[in-house]
Amino acid sequence: MKRYRNGEVWDFEHEVAVAANRPVILGLDGGTTSTVCICMPVMPSSDSLPDPLPVLARAIAGCSNHNSVGETAARETLEQVMADALSKSGSNRSAVRAVCLAVSGVNHPTDQQRILTWLREMFPSHVKLYVQNDAVAALASGTMGKLHGCVLIAGTGTIAYGFTEDGREARAAGAGPVLGDWGSGYGIAAQALTAVIRAHDGRGPHTMLKSAILQTLNLSSADELIGWTYADPSWARIAALVPVVVSCAEAGDEVANKILKEAVQELALSVKAVVQRLGLCGEDGKNSFPLVMVGGVLEANQRWDIGREVMDFISKEYPGALAIRPKVEPAVGAALLAWNEFMKEYLQEAYRR
Amino acid sequence: MKRYRNGEVWDFEHEVAVAANRPVILGLDGGTTSTVCICMPVMPSSDSLPDPLPVLARAIAGCSNHNSVGETAARETLEQVMADALSKSGSNRSAVRAVCLAVSGVNHPTDQQRILTWLREMFPSHVKLYVQNDAVAALASGTMGKLHGCVLIAGTGTIAYGFTEDGREARAAGAGPVLGDWGSGYGIAAQALTAVIRAHDGRGPHTMLKSAILQTLNLSSADELIGWTYADPSWARIAALVPVVVSCAEAGDEVANKILKEAVQELALSVKAVVQRLGLCGEDGKNSFPLVMVGGVLEANQRWDIGREVMDFISKEYPGALAIRPKVEPAVGAALLAWNEFMKEYLQEAYRR
Repeated sequence: MKRYRNGEVWDFEHEVAVAANRPVILGLDGGTTSTVCICMPVMPSSDSLPDPLPVLARAIAGCSNHNSVGETAARETLEQVMADALSKSGSNRSAVRAVCLAVSGVNHPTDQQRILTWLREMFPSHVKLYVQNDAVAALASGTMGKLHGCVLIAGTGTIAYGFTEDGREARAAGAGPVLGDWGSGYGIAAQALTAVIRAHDGRGPHTMLKSAILQTLNLSSADELIGWTYADPSWARIAALVPVVVSCAEAGDEVANKILKEAVQELALSVKAVVQRLGLCGEDGKNSFPLVMVGGVLEANQRWDIGREVMDFISKEYPGALAIRPKVEPAVGAALLAWNEFMKEYLQEAYRR
Repeated sequence: MKRYRNGEVWDFEHEVAVAANRPVILGLDGGTTSTVCICMPVMPSSDSLPDPLPVLARAIAGCSNHNSVGETAARETLEQVMADALSKSGSNRSAVRAVCLAVSGVNHPTDQQRILTWLREMFPSHVKLYVQNDAVAALASGTMGKLHGCVLIAGTGTIAYGFTEDGREARAAGAGPVLGDWGSGYGIAAQALTAVIRAHDGRGPHTMLKSAILQTLNLSSADELIGWTYADPSWARIAALVPVVVSCAEAGDEVANKILKEAVQELALSVKAVVQRLGLCGEDGKNSFPLVMVGGVLEANQRWDIGREVMDFISKEYPGALAIRPKVEPAVGAALLAWNEFMKEYLQEAYRR
């Protein structure tokens, strides 16, 4: 990504010859490691989507979580990545009809309002703006832009997020490792590290996690795990141990199996909490609804398949849950969401005239 | 504390008239918030200790945990606080017979060796040097310098540490919040915060912890807890919520009671692991041994007394466990330990001559 000095971000709008004034949509997915922006043309109808989707440009930048990098840096990153995507697609801000910005760290209406305020300054007043938690983009990537159903994300962190067709929303988990996201990759790996320490100091049963983890980290004793753990506060570095836990569980280690089974229950519980609060399953518990499943923890294609176990758990309670593994990335989900919402409002306005 | 430029730390040794060349001992307790150094005269016999103990000087400085502030800063702080204590007591390094440096962050023989190496450069070669984890100073503060028995510390963090009379040692827990120190103040408070989030998003039962914690932190909704939690990485800030959990448990809240009961079991389990591994209780499990109990979590003088519950738990298994609440601070324990070890080696050398 190019770096511009203050104010130069949008200079390309005067420099390049802008292609036919084709209306476009921007979708952004801002996670804790990177931010992706997708530019798509406004498609005439939402009845059937073209396959493949007509993506005009894709731009990528660093972290845009304001909790992690601060307000100013987050804003700069988001502005830059949108400018890059528009520039790459030979378009500019006057062609934009709607923007959906789905970023991690949006946990409260005040977060949403703060981002909307400065996003408003950036675009003409007729542009439709939507600010959401990044989980919402993941949901939309499975439902092709429709805000209906539940998404379960389990990567380094975990969250369940859902919407009813009439716009009510609910979430569960997603509060980070200190606040009990035990089904996350970080949660699974931290439990495994804890089991190693407990086996080592006599508080817990023997487990093959000890030799497997020490070997993976190239450490010679469990005491050295303490120094390793606190040397770097990155949650992703700890979560990277999940495959070791899965291997030990597959090899029959009881401690590793217990950790994974508890993670499955935790993940299923998050989905259940959202489904119950929104009544997605209907009064008889049998209504069908999309359940989008995303993230490294749910994608392990090994014998011990966490995603499948979670789905089995949920299907028993809610036979109408339709598991969806998205085929497009979350930023495309965000763009489809912006387009969907834009079309809805556009048609409503046309109807009123 | 005065701040000296490099190399000036020991200047006072030439500047002040040094009192009678009375042999002295230094004891240091280096925790994660502060470092205390005590200077005591060498007492002639270890049979009966004078009451009060003849403390010549006490100096205090900041954090000296090398994991937290780095090697150089830790060394500077330790050197400075020793110089201050000697200067205050009108003494100097030539009068020192033994030093016990008990600092947090000593988890491995390599940590110990690194600190010993630079401590060696600071003192004449005949000075006896001992480097220990800070838990050892807490044990010695209860046993008046003898390395025998078990200490349980539960403040922001928790650790159990024990020694047999013939010098074997063992520890349990003390691996920090990521690695499962669930009985610590941080562990108790993090479980309570988690319970609030789970009650709020429908994953857990209702609990009065929610209103109690939100009121204490001056927040209006549970969603705001996420921002509060990650705004500051200090473990002590989270652990400060323990009294709120105790109050809710006393008022009959089931969730708070469960958290405290589990913490009691975790703390007792740490002690049990150390006692078992060292055989402190003898073969019939009834031998007597000192059990020193230290730290804010164990000192709550409320109706829900965590320390008493832990002791009840341990007494059932080990009727010979003698609970001790130290009357002197850990730095005095470190000084007594240095003095004790020095006397032992001194008598052995005298015997050989």
